[in-house]
Amino acid sequence: MSRPTPLSGFPELLPAERNAELYVLDHLRRVFELHGFASIETRAVETLDQLLRKGEIDKEVYVLRRLQAEEGGADSGLGLHYDLTVPFARYVLENSGKLEFPFRRYQIQKAWRGERPQEGRFREFTQADIDIVAKDDLAFHFDVEVAHVMAEALSGLPVPPLRLGVNNRKLLEGFYRGLGVDDPAAVMRTVDKLDKLPAERVADLLRAEAGLDVDQTNRCLALAQISAADDSFVDQVRALGVEHDLLDTGLDELAEVISAIGALETGSVTVAADLRIARGLDYYTGTVFETQMAGFEHLGSICSGGRYDALADDGRNRYPGVGISLGVSRVLVPLIARGQLTASRSVPSAVLVALVDEGSRPDSNAIAQSLRARGIAAEVAATAQKFGKQIRYAERRGIPYVWFPAGLESAHQVKDIRDGGQRDADPSTWSPPDADMTPAINTTAGGEAQ
Amino acid sequence: MSRPTPLSGFPELLPAERNAELYVLDHLRRVFELHGFASIETRAVETLDQLLRKGEIDKEVYVLRRLQAEEGGADSGLGLHYDLTVPFARYVLENSGKLEFPFRRYQIQKAWRGERPQEGRFREFTQADIDIVAKDDLAFHFDVEVAHVMAEALSGLPVPPLRLGVNNRKLLEGFYRGLGVDDPAAVMRTVDKLDKLPAERVADLLRAEAGLDVDQTNRCLALAQISAADDSFVDQVRALGVEHDLLDTGLDELAEVISAIGALETGSVTVAADLRIARGLDYYTGTVFETQMAGFEHLGSICSGGRYDALADDGRNRYPGVGISLGVSRVLVPLIARGQLTASRSVPSAVLVALVDEGSRPDSNAIAQSLRARGIAAEVAATAQKFGKQIRYAERRGIPYVWFPAGLESAHQVKDIRDGGQRDADPSTWSPPDADMTPAINTTAGGEAQ
Repeated sequence: MSRPTPLSGFPELLPAERNAELYVLDHLRRVFELHGFASIETRAVETLDQLLRKGEIDKEVYVLRRLQAEEGGADSGLGLHYDLTVPFARYVLENSGKLEFPFRRYQIQKAWRGERPQEGRFREFTQADIDIVAKDDLAFHFDVEVAHVMAEALSGLPVPPLRLGVNNRKLLEGFYRGLGVDDPAAVMRTVDKLDKLPAERVADLLRAEAGLDVDQTNRCLALAQISAADDSFVDQVRALGVEHDLLDTGLDELAEVISAIGALETGSVTVAADLRIARGLDYYTGTVFETQMAGFEHLGSICSGGRYDALADDGRNRYPGVGISLGVSRVLVPLIARGQLTASRSVPSAVLVALVDEGSRPDSNAIAQSLRARGIAAEVAATAQKFGKQIRYAERRGIPYVWFPAGLESAHQVKDIRDGGQRDADPSTWSPPDADMTPAINTTAGGEAQ
Repeated sequence: MSRPTPLSGFPELLPAERNAELYVLDHLRRVFELHGFASIETRAVETLDQLLRKGEIDKEVYVLRRLQAEEGGADSGLGLHYDLTVPFARYVLENSGKLEFPFRRYQIQKAWRGERPQEGRFREFTQADIDIVAKDDLAFHFDVEVAHVMAEALSGLPVPPLRLGVNNRKLLEGFYRGLGVDDPAAVMRTVDKLDKLPAERVADLLRAEAGLDVDQTNRCLALAQISAADDSFVDQVRALGVEHDLLDTGLDELAEVISAIGALETGSVTVAADLRIARGLDYYTGTVFETQMAGFEHLGSICSGGRYDALADDGRNRYPGVGISLGVSRVLVPLIARGQLTASRSVPSAVLVALVDEGSRPDSNAIAQSLRARGIAAEVAATAQKFGKQIRYAERRGIPYVWFPAGLESAHQVKDIRDGGQRDADPSTWSPPDADMTPAINTTAGGEAQ
């Protein structure tokens, strides 16, 4: 068989790169669990009617067919999920009698879309979602909670600075209604295009398609320009002279999210009210989130979400939810591809135990096993080459320590191959510094590293 | 939307059950990493020519088609992988210039087969594989290593007693050749049926299909009856009076694996030479493994593998490998379905911080955040119900501790709701016992539990 080539849109990582990804996934899980979010996984497939029930025909769904199905066999009626929200909504309905509400869950899984691949957009990708869902009513403080948890999770990532922008659809709808706009949803969809079109062009569309007059258009665009890392945005909105009850509610809610999160230590993550965010194509009804990564704005939002008044509905009960979804592959794969993120070693091993000769392999195994019993990852050299070659073996894998077993006239010794320092050591008590226990993260991307 | 129903063959877990699975997956990962095995993940899809290249048309492959493909659009040429070995072989060839050999990897991922579902056989399932692959030559001690690592991993699982059986295809082939058999592979395929057919029926087949005479048949069946937890099997084989160089090699190798692993502490796992194991349909060339779970023998082998002389081959280099694959879903889903395995709580939270009134939510949040800073998972009550109801809220989720914030005349107090004990505590120093930090595993299945 000749050498296979990569499949476009299906990124795979080399072992050292995977160690960087594992560091990120472990960190996310730790933060989510500290906040009481339960792990679930859903199956990779959903029925096509579930996948398409919101008329999401723009999503490029992969449909499954059994190869052994009869000639011209029909599709299985199953497709791969394209996000983790549709499966979660189905899981909540299917298990509603067995879940405790409010139900906090995190879900870190692959999803698939048959789209044309480009940087940060893949056919197979990993998402990390948190959501809180309740039965019938979900108090507003849960909006603050998901924003807080995700900001804390993002702040520990070895990535460039992130800006988590928050807005509120009630604020937008109230503002538009207060201006006398008949179809606020049409305005949101148009304002949403400020990412891709110049403001003048969006102004043209607001007049031509949403039917706004010049004053309405100007104030809608003025609103979209407001952003602030504290609640000063409230006065800026008031200064535009629009009044509506729903606007008041939206301003209160947004101010509460910003105040609550602004007060936290969020490391390299900036949280700000950003009144441009509309998420016009999604089904949000209150708080909405988007996140930009510095230097990677062309990727679009890498972490988005918001509140749904009805994440799911089974006819008897309604399940409102609020959640936020991090595009793990969208963030990591471009950084890794550019060489801005990897790990210090391609193996978990902190120690390579050298081999004096093949006959003494049991001795070297016993040393390794003694280290492992204290949580130190260790492997034994593959062959009894000269020690210089065994050190090179460790070096090529990034293993920081080589252990030389005791001989007739010498004690056990351990060498830090980075500085060459070598000293006597006891396999039943020696430990490396904590920082060497697991692969270190190498990043030139700013943010925190291990 | 009406309530969705489960899809046969696509098991999903409730949160407490998922906590039991996570415990198992974390344990496997920890053991694999302590032994220097690197994590990789491969994409879920392979090209159909990769999936079918060994003529594996008995595997029910799921083929992908894009829903938006042109009318009558062709398949994508991609299918979901049905195991982790085919993808790993492809990954090794694709990245051979970037990997360090010998290369140890573990891979814990889903796989898919469009088979008829039954207990322990699913259409979507999780596998945990370890393999060691080298370029050109792979020393025999790696066979011992993978057996050792998997035995150690299995021994920490909260499952019924396991029996890891080991055999050697060189031993079988040498024995059959020493008996004068022309087609040892045909004999192996027939002996492999001893799982499903009575010995007399297998004897008939050996004579009718493999062309053996009565003496050959009797000695083949006598060989298959030999098993031992130490190297006493060697004398038993010798007593059958067959001689062949390949038999000698096979006996030496098998004795070495059994001696090396028998000497380890392997908890509830028994390791034994079992000369019945043939794995007749696979491409193994030396050591072979199978594992039975006590009381669940009808599931077949739950952990199997062996040595391939050519895991992969790109025309320039050959990549021999040895590996073993644990059917995580095959083991866990039946235990969970029978109520023999779950976790003590449905959430990660060790503590529920009670809420005095909605206005003091920031105080309760601060207490929870103080606990989290020391690694204690905590959540704050959803509403300021009466404390009795908040305790019930914790109980229903299996959260062991409820924290009552300090009042004007009272100190902070923490209550263990299992025994009702309540005492003063400081949120900046109090910790639960280690055993309460994470969900405990509830098992009636024997084996170790947390």
